[in-house]
Amino acid sequence: MKKLEDYVVTIPDFPEPGIMFRDVTSVIQDAEGLQLAIDSLQSLLEGLEFDVLVGAESRGFIFGMPLAYNLHKPFVLVRKKGKLPRETVSKEYALEYGTAEIEMHKDAIQPGQKVVLVDDLIATGGTMKAAAEMVEELGGEVVKIIFLMELAGLKGRDVLEKYDVASVITYEGK
Amino acid sequence: MKKLEDYVVTIPDFPEPGIMFRDVTSVIQDAEGLQLAIDSLQSLLEGLEFDVLVGAESRGFIFGMPLAYNLHKPFVLVRKKGKLPRETVSKEYALEYGTAEIEMHKDAIQPGQKVVLVDDLIATGGTMKAAAEMVEELGGEVVKIIFLMELAGLKGRDVLEKYDVASVITYEGK
Repeated sequence: MKKLEDYVVTIPDFPEPGIMFRDVTSVIQDAEGLQLAIDSLQSLLEGLEFDVLVGAESRGFIFGMPLAYNLHKPFVLVRKKGKLPRETVSKEYALEYGTAEIEMHKDAIQPGQKVVLVDDLIATGGTMKAAAEMVEELGGEVVKIIFLMELAGLKGRDVLEKYDVASVITYEGK
Repeated sequence: MKKLEDYVVTIPDFPEPGIMFRDVTSVIQDAEGLQLAIDSLQSLLEGLEFDVLVGAESRGFIFGMPLAYNLHKPFVLVRKKGKLPRETVSKEYALEYGTAEIEMHKDAIQPGQKVVLVDDLIATGGTMKAAAEMVEELGGEVVKIIFLMELAGLKGRDVLEKYDVASVITYEGK
């Protein structure tokens, strides 16, 4: 039987020379790969009590929404600045060159709610750290952060060390 | 009992003056709204035989992935140019000002496959027409195009007239 790893296509030098791009589109364009990806992520949440699932644009949407549906939870979008129509909180964070800014709707999290964050991949952890801080700013408690894939060589876990982090597949390199 | 329409927040003059923005984030940030949205979309596909589900960046991902999971189908991404790592087909289409270009992976559709397209909203229909043409270029057959919401005043159905189009909620205006 194929494992989840077998569905991931690795593309060397995308989007820049030196980067080994782990492609999740190859996982979900196979019906079995898609089931396995969602079921594996969902198993990371087994037994966990929480109120809201939050995913980051745009591959976090892909993996977050089926989980939200299956577990009967609300789903909240973290988007790049300027795309959300209602009142937002925002957070700037550092990229390799320059900065990026992400937003969430202010009314998306209620104080005291237990929140799970989901994304396809943890690399440096910068986006998820900024997302977690926005959740906390709104009074939510980040009870877990889950990823389909982890590039351990980039040490994103160190950036998220105060959180409970789990991933389905770990690649040792960058 | 609340209807799906009751979860949609309408924001006047976003992102530009004169536009009534129909916000789907308000639907999915409610657990019941999210269930209702996915179940309603899924009921549009009842009894339909198809092989692949295709969704456009990025709100098409939100609604497409739970359907793909529930119906045990592959999910294929239509993305803005430059974001997909493997070999692609692309299509340029007109916007109100200027043009946009979208892409799909070449190996995402096999010749003869029956394809369903999904998006959150049909406005002018330009994106979905370009997506449908890419599917056809790869040898796929577009058997249905579904939307959560339709802005009937923008006549997107005319642009997609050769296809079987269905939507859950229809707004008469623009």
